[in-house]
Amino acid sequence: VEKISHPVRFNRTPSAPCCRRRSSLLRPHGLRVSRDFAPRRFVRHIASSTNEEAAARTAAATADTGGPTIFDKIIAKEIPSSIVYEDEKVLAFRDINPQAPVHVLVIPKLRDGLTGLDKAEPRHAEILGQLLYAAKVVAEKEGVADGFRVVINNGAEGCQSVYHLHVHVLGGRQMKWPPG
Amino acid sequence: VEKISHPVRFNRTPSAPCCRRRSSLLRPHGLRVSRDFAPRRFVRHIASSTNEEAAARTAAATADTGGPTIFDKIIAKEIPSSIVYEDEKVLAFRDINPQAPVHVLVIPKLRDGLTGLDKAEPRHAEILGQLLYAAKVVAEKEGVADGFRVVINNGAEGCQSVYHLHVHVLGGRQMKWPPG
Repeated sequence: VEKISHPVRFNRTPSAPCCRRRSSLLRPHGLRVSRDFAPRRFVRHIASSTNEEAAARTAAATADTGGPTIFDKIIAKEIPSSIVYEDEKVLAFRDINPQAPVHVLVIPKLRDGLTGLDKAEPRHAEILGQLLYAAKVVAEKEGVADGFRVVINNGAEGCQSVYHLHVHVLGGRQMKWPPG
Repeated sequence: VEKISHPVRFNRTPSAPCCRRRSSLLRPHGLRVSRDFAPRRFVRHIASSTNEEAAARTAAATADTGGPTIFDKIIAKEIPSSIVYEDEKVLAFRDINPQAPVHVLVIPKLRDGLTGLDKAEPRHAEILGQLLYAAKVVAEKEGVADGFRVVINNGAEGCQSVYHLHVHVLGGRQMKWPPG
């Protein structure tokens, strides 16, 4: 990723490095973007996005082994995480690479074959509903119930990087269209 | 949205005007983007995104009246739609403004108070699960089960433009990060 060699103004969460680096890319209004800086940002945006896609392709190579993922250690609390919500079936914790001021992952504690949404069978409908309901609870707890986006990535083209089904909850800034 | 006044090469679905218009914005690899065109595309991208956000703000103004939406007419088949999947509880049809070669909306036939995900109550977990399971069925039917993204927008900041809960299923191209 290209180094930032021009002044960048931050509009939110200056303490979160990932949000900080991205904040200049995520300005909601065209009028606030200087034409002089646009090409540089454009190229940086592509570079960053391509990195994420490369990570997803690497992850996909071992996707369907059903092996353990980093989420197993987070569920077992062997790795610390910033937990936002937890119940018997579901765990919600902050994404370590946030793409918005609020960015939480909601996962089933028991993967039960759900490496991705494409593996869902009718018996999984119950946990899928619990995950989406938990996403709404998370949005409320985080104070963004009025405006948020829920995202599930599946496979390399969907940009999935961990093969344990997870629901992204993003909010606290204007989300754009298209959704990536 | 700025008019296209330079040559644009299409890489997919040349018969779908919306995909066609966007295809130049959605090139997956930086190397394929000419620096000369970058600023223009960048500005066009912002313009389009801002239009969608403006539409979402307008929709939000009447969001919570619980009044009928265009989806009621689609469910009643008073407005034609390109239906991809249907069962007792769920209807899936193509988005008229697709943001990817595959872009389908999955909705509950009975809104039952779900103007948005933020209105979900525990009793809604069942239909939420059915919607996500249907999203997986749609991805399979459309041949993108290996790579797709599921998105739910909530409120103006989430870019929600119809106040009847709906799940976007997008695929058929490399999805980017962040997700909007």
